[in-house]
Amino acid sequence: MNTSNEFTRNMLTRLVLVGTSHPGNIGAVARAMKNMGLLELYLVNPKIFPHADATARAAGADDVLQTAKVVASLAEAVGDCHLVIGTSARSRTLSWPLLDPRQAGELVAQESVQQHKVAVVFGRERSGLDNEELQQCHYHLQIPTNAKFSSLNLAAAVQIVAYEIKVAMDRIEQVPVAEISNIELPTAHELELFYQHLEQVLLDLEFLDKENPRQLMARLRRLFNRALPKKLEINILRGILKAVQENKR
Amino acid sequence: MNTSNEFTRNMLTRLVLVGTSHPGNIGAVARAMKNMGLLELYLVNPKIFPHADATARAAGADDVLQTAKVVASLAEAVGDCHLVIGTSARSRTLSWPLLDPRQAGELVAQESVQQHKVAVVFGRERSGLDNEELQQCHYHLQIPTNAKFSSLNLAAAVQIVAYEIKVAMDRIEQVPVAEISNIELPTAHELELFYQHLEQVLLDLEFLDKENPRQLMARLRRLFNRALPKKLEINILRGILKAVQENKR
Repeated sequence: MNTSNEFTRNMLTRLVLVGTSHPGNIGAVARAMKNMGLLELYLVNPKIFPHADATARAAGADDVLQTAKVVASLAEAVGDCHLVIGTSARSRTLSWPLLDPRQAGELVAQESVQQHKVAVVFGRERSGLDNEELQQCHYHLQIPTNAKFSSLNLAAAVQIVAYEIKVAMDRIEQVPVAEISNIELPTAHELELFYQHLEQVLLDLEFLDKENPRQLMARLRRLFNRALPKKLEINILRGILKAVQENKR
Repeated sequence: MNTSNEFTRNMLTRLVLVGTSHPGNIGAVARAMKNMGLLELYLVNPKIFPHADATARAAGADDVLQTAKVVASLAEAVGDCHLVIGTSARSRTLSWPLLDPRQAGELVAQESVQQHKVAVVFGRERSGLDNEELQQCHYHLQIPTNAKFSSLNLAAAVQIVAYEIKVAMDRIEQVPVAEISNIELPTAHELELFYQHLEQVLLDLEFLDKENPRQLMARLRRLFNRALPKKLEINILRGILKAVQENKR
C-alpha cells in the first residue's frame, strides 16, 4: 500500500462524536479509528474531555486524542465537508437516503478518490443524534442489529463503520498485491505419480481390492485434489508411502 | 426474517474466548455478540469470571454471561464443532487457510444452513492464540488493520466478526434451503482423533522423529484442513492407517 495515498485518504475522512457523555468512550473510539487507519476526530460538546479514562481506553491512540478538535456545534464540525453521513439507530418519521455500513464505506472511499472531505457523525450514547442534527446529514447510516438488543456501544458502532471504510478504501486503491505467493505446485504428471504410488501401497496393504475397488481411488483423488497440494506436500506424502513400503518388506 | 430460523442459526455459532485477562472485556464481548444476535459463549480459562466488571460492560447481555460455559481447554470448547475458525493477528511462519472477516461470515452462514456447528475462537488480549491452539483450527481469520497500530481491543475484534456473521446470515436466509447439500462433516474432536492416529502411525514407521519433528504434523494438518474433509473421507483415511498398523505387526 502506498503510504502517502493512505495518509491522504485518511485525512479526508473525519469522525464526529456529538455530545459524548463518557470520556472512556472517546478513548475507545480513538483506538477503533486508528486501528482502521482513521485519524481525524471532532468532538461536539463532549461532557468531559480531556480525561484520564479517554487516554487509558485509547491504548496508544494518543495522537488521535491530542489532535481532536472540540467544537460547539455539529454545523461547525462539518462545515468544510463535502459529504456528511449521520448514524441513526431508529427509523425516523422523516425518511432519508439510507445506507448500511458497507454502502457507507464504499461511498466514503469513492468520495476520497475524488478528494472530497467526508464526515461520519455519531450521536450521544443514549439518545443518538436529534432530528435537527440528522437533517444536517446527506445520508443516514443504520447498522444492522438484533431487534431485541439493538443498542450498540459507541466505540463498537464506530469500529464497524471504520472497518467498512478501511475495507472499501483498501479495495479502491487497487494496489498490486505485495507478493504473489510463489509456492510451487506439482505438475499434473507429478500428481499422477503420487496417485499411482498411493494406489500401489493400498494394493500392497490389501486395503484396496482390485476386483472390487469401490471408487476408493476416486474418493481419495477428490479429497486430495480439493486441497490443491503443493509440491512440497506431495513429496512428504510420497515419503510416507515409501516408509510404509519399506516397513512392509 | 423467520424468528425460529434466526434462533436456530444463532445456536449453531459459538464464540470462544481463550485465556481472557480482563472480565470487563468478557462483558463487552457478550454485548457485542448479543447486538449481532449471537448468544453462545465459551470461556477457556478466563482469569476472573464471573465479575462485576463483566456484568457492567455487558450492558444488559446478562443472559449471554449467565449461560457462558467455562472450560479448561480449547479442545473441550470446540470438541463438538464441525468447523473451527481461529483469529490470528500475525502472519505465522506456517501459512494456514486464511479468511478475512467477510469470508468468515459467509462460511459461518453457509455452515449454519447445513446445521453445522461452528466455533469462532479469539485469543488472549496481549498474545492471542498460541501455535498449538491455532493448529486446532481449520481456518485462521485475520482482521485487516492499520499496520502501524494493529492491536484491536478484544470486544472490537468480536464486534467486527459478529457483524460480518450477521450480514451474511441475513443474506443467506433469503436463499431457499431446499437444494443444500447434506454432506456430513466430522466434528473437531473426530478430526483431532484422525490427526492423533496419523501421528502415531508416522511414529511407528519412524517417519516422524519425536526429537526432531520438523513441523511435519503441522504441515499435514494444514494440507488436510485445507480440503475440509468429510466424515466419510476421515473414515477412509483412518481405515488406511489401521491397515498400515496391522501390516506392521
